[in-house]
Amino acid sequence: MYKVLLLNGPNLNMLGVREPGVYGVDTLDSIIAKLQSKAEALGVQLDCFQTNHEGAIIDRIHSALGAADGILINPGAWTHYSYALHDALGAVNLPFVEVHMSNIHKREAFRHVSVTAPIAVGQITGFGAYSYELGLLALVQHLQHLQSQG
Amino acid sequence: MYKVLLLNGPNLNMLGVREPGVYGVDTLDSIIAKLQSKAEALGVQLDCFQTNHEGAIIDRIHSALGAADGILINPGAWTHYSYALHDALGAVNLPFVEVHMSNIHKREAFRHVSVTAPIAVGQITGFGAYSYELGLLALVQHLQHLQSQG
Amino acid sequence: MYKVLLLNGPNLNMLGVREPGVYGVDTLDSIIAKLQSKAEALGVQLDCFQTNHEGAIIDRIHSALGAADGILINPGAWTHYSYALHDALGAVNLPFVEVHMSNIHKREAFRHVSVTAPIAVGQITGFGAYSYELGLLALVQHLQHLQSQG
Amino acid sequence: MYKVLLLNGPNLNMLGVREPGVYGVDTLDSIIAKLQSKAEALGVQLDCFQTNHEGAIIDRIHSALGAADGILINPGAWTHYSYALHDALGAVNLPFVEVHMSNIHKREAFRHVSVTAPIAVGQITGFGAYSYELGLLALVQHLQHLQSQG
Amino acid sequence: MYKVLLLNGPNLNMLGVREPGVYGVDTLDSIIAKLQSKAEALGVQLDCFQTNHEGAIIDRIHSALGAADGILINPGAWTHYSYALHDALGAVNLPFVEVHMSNIHKREAFRHVSVTAPIAVGQITGFGAYSYELGLLALVQHLQHLQSQG
Amino acid sequence: MYKVLLLNGPNLNMLGVREPGVYGVDTLDSIIAKLQSKAEALGVQLDCFQTNHEGAIIDRIHSALGAADGILINPGAWTHYSYALHDALGAVNLPFVEVHMSNIHKREAFRHVSVTAPIAVGQITGFGAYSYELGLLALVQHLQHLQSQG
Amino acid sequence: MYKVLLLNGPNLNMLGVREPGVYGVDTLDSIIAKLQSKAEALGVQLDCFQTNHEGAIIDRIHSALGAADGILINPGAWTHYSYALHDALGAVNLPFVEVHMSNIHKREAFRHVSVTAPIAVGQITGFGAYSYELGLLALVQHLQHLQSQG
Amino acid sequence: MYKVLLLNGPNLNMLGVREPGVYGVDTLDSIIAKLQSKAEALGVQLDCFQTNHEGAIIDRIHSALGAADGILINPGAWTHYSYALHDALGAVNLPFVEVHMSNIHKREAFRHVSVTAPIAVGQITGFGAYSYELGLLALVQHLQHLQSQG
Amino acid sequence: MYKVLLLNGPNLNMLGVREPGVYGVDTLDSIIAKLQSKAEALGVQLDCFQTNHEGAIIDRIHSALGAADGILINPGAWTHYSYALHDALGAVNLPFVEVHMSNIHKREAFRHVSVTAPIAVGQITGFGAYSYELGLLALVQHLQHLQSQG
Amino acid sequence: MYKVLLLNGPNLNMLGVREPGVYGVDTLDSIIAKLQSKAEALGVQLDCFQTNHEGAIIDRIHSALGAADGILINPGAWTHYSYALHDALGAVNLPFVEVHMSNIHKREAFRHVSVTAPIAVGQITGFGAYSYELGLLALVQHLQHLQSQG
Amino acid sequence: MYKVLLLNGPNLNMLGVREPGVYGVDTLDSIIAKLQSKAEALGVQLDCFQTNHEGAIIDRIHSALGAADGILINPGAWTHYSYALHDALGAVNLPFVEVHMSNIHKREAFRHVSVTAPIAVGQITGFGAYSYELGLLALVQHLQHLQSQG
Amino acid sequence: MYKVLLLNGPNLNMLGVREPGVYGVDTLDSIIAKLQSKAEALGVQLDCFQTNHEGAIIDRIHSALGAADGILINPGAWTHYSYALHDALGAVNLPFVEVHMSNIHKREAFRHVSVTAPIAVGQITGFGAYSYELGLLALVQHLQHLQSQG
Repeated sequence: MYKVLLLNGPNLNMLGVREPGVYGVDTLDSIIAKLQSKAEALGVQLDCFQTNHEGAIIDRIHSALGAADGILINPGAWTHYSYALHDALGAVNLPFVEVHMSNIHKREAFRHVSVTAPIAVGQITGFGAYSYELGLLALVQHLQHLQSQG
Repeated sequence: MYKVLLLNGPNLNMLGVREPGVYGVDTLDSIIAKLQSKAEALGVQLDCFQTNHEGAIIDRIHSALGAADGILINPGAWTHYSYALHDALGAVNLPFVEVHMSNIHKREAFRHVSVTAPIAVGQITGFGAYSYELGLLALVQHLQHLQSQG
Repeated sequence: MYKVLLLNGPNLNMLGVREPGVYGVDTLDSIIAKLQSKAEALGVQLDCFQTNHEGAIIDRIHSALGAADGILINPGAWTHYSYALHDALGAVNLPFVEVHMSNIHKREAFRHVSVTAPIAVGQITGFGAYSYELGLLALVQHLQHLQSQG
Repeated sequence: MYKVLLLNGPNLNMLGVREPGVYGVDTLDSIIAKLQSKAEALGVQLDCFQTNHEGAIIDRIHSALGAADGILINPGAWTHYSYALHDALGAVNLPFVEVHMSNIHKREAFRHVSVTAPIAVGQITGFGAYSYELGLLALVQHLQHLQSQG
Repeated sequence: MYKVLLLNGPNLNMLGVREPGVYGVDTLDSIIAKLQSKAEALGVQLDCFQTNHEGAIIDRIHSALGAADGILINPGAWTHYSYALHDALGAVNLPFVEVHMSNIHKREAFRHVSVTAPIAVGQITGFGAYSYELGLLALVQHLQHLQSQG
Repeated sequence: MYKVLLLNGPNLNMLGVREPGVYGVDTLDSIIAKLQSKAEALGVQLDCFQTNHEGAIIDRIHSALGAADGILINPGAWTHYSYALHDALGAVNLPFVEVHMSNIHKREAFRHVSVTAPIAVGQITGFGAYSYELGLLALVQHLQHLQSQG
Repeated sequence: MYKVLLLNGPNLNMLGVREPGVYGVDTLDSIIAKLQSKAEALGVQLDCFQTNHEGAIIDRIHSALGAADGILINPGAWTHYSYALHDALGAVNLPFVEVHMSNIHKREAFRHVSVTAPIAVGQITGFGAYSYELGLLALVQHLQHLQSQG
Repeated sequence: MYKVLLLNGPNLNMLGVREPGVYGVDTLDSIIAKLQSKAEALGVQLDCFQTNHEGAIIDRIHSALGAADGILINPGAWTHYSYALHDALGAVNLPFVEVHMSNIHKREAFRHVSVTAPIAVGQITGFGAYSYELGLLALVQHLQHLQSQG
Repeated sequence: MYKVLLLNGPNLNMLGVREPGVYGVDTLDSIIAKLQSKAEALGVQLDCFQTNHEGAIIDRIHSALGAADGILINPGAWTHYSYALHDALGAVNLPFVEVHMSNIHKREAFRHVSVTAPIAVGQITGFGAYSYELGLLALVQHLQHLQSQG
Repeated sequence: MYKVLLLNGPNLNMLGVREPGVYGVDTLDSIIAKLQSKAEALGVQLDCFQTNHEGAIIDRIHSALGAADGILINPGAWTHYSYALHDALGAVNLPFVEVHMSNIHKREAFRHVSVTAPIAVGQITGFGAYSYELGLLALVQHLQHLQSQG
Repeated sequence: MYKVLLLNGPNLNMLGVREPGVYGVDTLDSIIAKLQSKAEALGVQLDCFQTNHEGAIIDRIHSALGAADGILINPGAWTHYSYALHDALGAVNLPFVEVHMSNIHKREAFRHVSVTAPIAVGQITGFGAYSYELGLLALVQHLQHLQSQG
Repeated sequence: MYKVLLLNGPNLNMLGVREPGVYGVDTLDSIIAKLQSKAEALGVQLDCFQTNHEGAIIDRIHSALGAADGILINPGAWTHYSYALHDALGAVNLPFVEVHMSNIHKREAFRHVSVTAPIAVGQITGFGAYSYELGLLALVQHLQHLQSQG
């Protein structure tokens, strides 16, 4: 059974509250609930954390060292400038998958660049709440691959 | 009567303590006290918050949803890089006015760009503590205009 | 009593005639009429001039030397390229406030940069016709501040 | 019968006088004379104006509102920097066709960008004096198209 | 049952033949075989096409109009410069998902930009052959979503 | 009688099929039919070729050497990156006119630059199907001019 | 005897009135008076014109055709953006020398580029009022050189 | 005796835990312990603080006003984007020395620029844990120099 | 005996037909004939292929795997943008030498960058038809070097 | 009597030998001879030095400290990149005038920027050998001006 | 005992002579004298060389091969453009520490980039003459570290 | 018999001493010895010169005027910034071939641009010591070509 840390960055607690045109009508809680049942089916223990504080997400990533097998992360707007988050992910060196609900390449120019993607396993962008589910599948597949290589 | 959230970003708690050449000699408390009396005269209930924590200002903006009619904000240095703040302001979609005490176009190149201004009602820069008062007038006028279109 | 020169740059004579979606429905005459009554209340003598000729606004600025205490200016499209206007404002060295009716940071990229703002007292952008009124308040406050330092 | 305003920008009064290698040997008067006869054949009333004064062309564009159906314009060097001209054309919102006698893409780098083209119906560049005739045809065809859509 | 066109761009026929360090050891045939069984399970009829000819992929996209419900595409190196491919995908206006086996953000700078992603439903990058399977899931979910909105 | 080669680049075979908002409702066949009758009236023999294959258009241009007097070309998306097309046009050194149905300066940034325009006689952009007709007129006028200089 | 047209651009009428730290204490009139006596000694007939109107300087340059042997010009702020002035100087094709009183390379970045210098005989910058005298010497020497090649 | 505040930014609490290839095997605690004994020898009272929260480091810098003589700081990834940290250091105006364990000029491009260095006394980069000791020496020497100028 | 694949990209079939000023008067056939005799002398079996189709050259490169020892290529205009060609050469991983007849650094700016050169053994540019002969020598020397290390 | 150091940078010893089209037919010796007689007339003692060695010109500038009143320099190609020369001129802090025989703004892009001009008194460019004479006049006038301010 | 080569680049022989505001009042000789005594205390044999000739410093670096254990270098203005110096340091591959007396990040933009720093052990900037002493300590510590790894 | 000047720039005297991974194990002497025998076979008299002094190579190039028929040069790091070298080669106007042992397009970004290549006959890069031999062949062929056109 894999232990996966699900991280959500700034403003994602507002999902389903505002801007449904961009992000859909589901709240973060309902998305996580759905993802939890998917995780169970995959034999994954999902630990969830959302914060608007850069320092808090870094602390949380550090504490995952030795406690989680991988990270599923939607860094929100930090995607585009938080080198501190980049370094936190690099420091623990856990495999992580980056997901975005909206297609970041369709939006403002500042969203076209991700400072965290270059050290991720991979990135999934544009499929609404389903991006999380795809990301979880991708992470599990990657963990199995690592395990099989032993 | 309008409810307005007054937000001050990082280092603005140091106003009047250092660098009076750039920002004047008034402390943030004295500026707010003066603004409060102006607010009362305008029939505005002013709720004030200063923080050096990006996460704290985002949380505060979220909690303004349904509780405030508009936001008056001096984002300090976050003006120039905090896309998380940009997204928080976009998420609650409350009308906001951005103010700066100094004329940001006279200073270092990094201060010439505001990542929040493109989604503001407008921006006021360069009039010292009086920028807040002008910003409050501008916000009230905008709220009245919205109400009149009701 | 302060003498203030109100300058409007190219195409602002068309206000209220076209593009009300961007600039509102008021004509420049009605905006000025309203501003005049505000000016009287502030003890300001307002001298108004609109032109589509760069040379004419430069001549007018020169003639303000010794005749006006400050300038309130909406440079229109010259904001973005007229270094001659920049130099004229620099040459007379009168305090001036730059105003824009629309939020220039929301519009085409070429409007995001102002060549005159770096030498202005400050800039106000985005509040429709009310930008002029805020600009007048800001200028008067600045003139009073100068006087008090006398 | 369509009323079309033909505008020529700075230095085009010098056509045929200097630099025939770039612009041909015809004077502006002879070009206009030829275009007038073409206009008559098309049922177009052509009103012609050349100026080296940016303010004068803006004034002339404003006065076309309600008086002309469309504009045929060779903005000369203003093509590359006059946002005031751009705004004048945008303010009256008349359909306009931009023409250049030389192929601007073959010449100095500064001529490769047109600040007015993005709001034109279209642009024709490179065919000498014949560019005007093609531009007139294009404008008439556009006006007919608008009319047919009623 | 959905009809999905699977497109593979230049050099993807070489998968498994060279550079296993970057792309893994599976051949394109084995990847497709595996994907076909996945497709059947999802009730998807998969039509597969690989080409090294830009013109051939454009022709194939055109012929999908009316014949396919969506497109799953790995554009290979065309991702980074083929505006003709971009226009072909835009012309048929079928929902498409863009996949990459390697994490393009980890590789040469020229691979960091995708000219097709801005008009895709979304993009999946970095999960080896599994990127195709995730892409198929994403596309099916999107098609179901469209259908449910009917 | 002039022999003119009419070339249409990628996706132009889809004209009238999709995106009528951008390109109008006419199919390429109907546009060509109309242009053929215009050509006959001008004493032009029009040879037409559309392809989505860069290599095919280059081959076709080469074969025009000695067989055509000029080229009328809508390079579609190749306009913006195909230096091979640029070199093919340069190699045969036939006079050519570049046309675009939409105003490329109004659209995405990548469409603002043409790699072929610097070696064209001229460029016509923005007049829908009528751009072809104007282009044909321009080319014929240019050929007559060359002939008259004999 | 050479006929030389001395042109001064925007704000140069303010010389000696403001900013003596940058431009010195002499007025334009006193500079010209001094230059006139120098011109007489050199056998030069000096015709002087200052304007803040771009159109007026272009008209004046055009009228110099056939009436002057060369031009001595301080284009002021137009130096940095007036392609119309560039084209006017190019159209009459008279030899001209560009002068600046201040060293433009010591000042704001926008002053480091001259759009007119590439077609000048040469440029002299940084010697206060004496720049004009040096410019006149340079122009006379150039005219003599042309004459000697006659 | 000098009071020095030692600040460590995000992820530096992970020193010695991961990436010893880049940062060495020492933990932050062991580095500080060693630095403390060095500080005592220099007559320096060292106050140490590490945080992953930008707001917390800003608060700590503010509280150093009047309580510390200088600051020794390794800003970690904030070096490259935190203008709020820049402003905090500027606001208290205490002399500070910036240190980095790795040579930032050898690593990713984003690490080549420091937004804090322009207002530091100086910067030391590349000497592993010894960078702190060198930084302390440099700061003490600077404080002595200030004192001697008294 | 080495097997070498000689590849020529778009428009090189036009050598000797047009633009002798840039490329010389020899046709591609005569160049190849001469190169063949040189190849024989070197004990090289030369297999020659020219195409204007990007897809065709990629196919041909793929088929060289196991059939050729090295590639001599003049990619023509694809040099400057065909990442698909780059990837094809990378996929087969055969040593290749890039040649250009003209000195690409003397010509238009777009020709100064080669997207294929970074993975070539080396590049030879500027010696007309002789560039091919030098390239063949260079390739043979490289193959001998590899063999000697074998 | 003023002591002036005349410095000529790399390749200026070749004047009159090659490229008369750009630099004229005079040798450096003949230019200096002519300048010497001019210097005598002005009461200037001219000390001349040409070198192709950057280190030698720096040494020579250093030795001018206390021995020369000003420097007249044509830095040749060092103008565009030698920050060491810039620092040498800054270190001795003698007034210097920069001259160029050709108009550097008409030539290759790399010649449009001077790294030394920002600390010069002024710059003279484009008047052939006469640039030296004008530069000497300018320097003398500047030295007289300094003396008069004494 | 370590042998260290101390290198000083262009204009550093002028230290203490000019610009004490930037570099302090000490001469290079006095700085070296002080450093020598420090070196002795550290058991370092210091070999010192200053030159204004790029070639001379390269020759000196080459001769250090086998004769020195490390290099302490203040490259002066060469820091910003001398790739030849970069290559010399790379060719001998001796550990070197780069020092600057002034804080190069506080000065002109051209000084913000060092072409040598990416291959240095580390860089120290901003501490006046004390930068050399810190640099020596850093180099010794690095040499000891290398020795201990043996 | 042709006289060819072989020039080697900075650090090339270190060939074979360090960095054999990049430049091979041969010393410059052994490379030249081998090239001399090749030169003899070609009827070329080879005059060889290596220097680390920019001034020395410029002097040497000047002295080649009238003494050499062509130049074979490996400018080393000067390739990327020495405009003085560029001008020296331009001043003598002898045909020259530029060679590099390593493939400069595979290395650091600063090595991708050559300031001398635009005026060379051609450039050869990437073939180790054999680049010199190819360069000599290319130069001889070019000299023969010039002679045959004689």
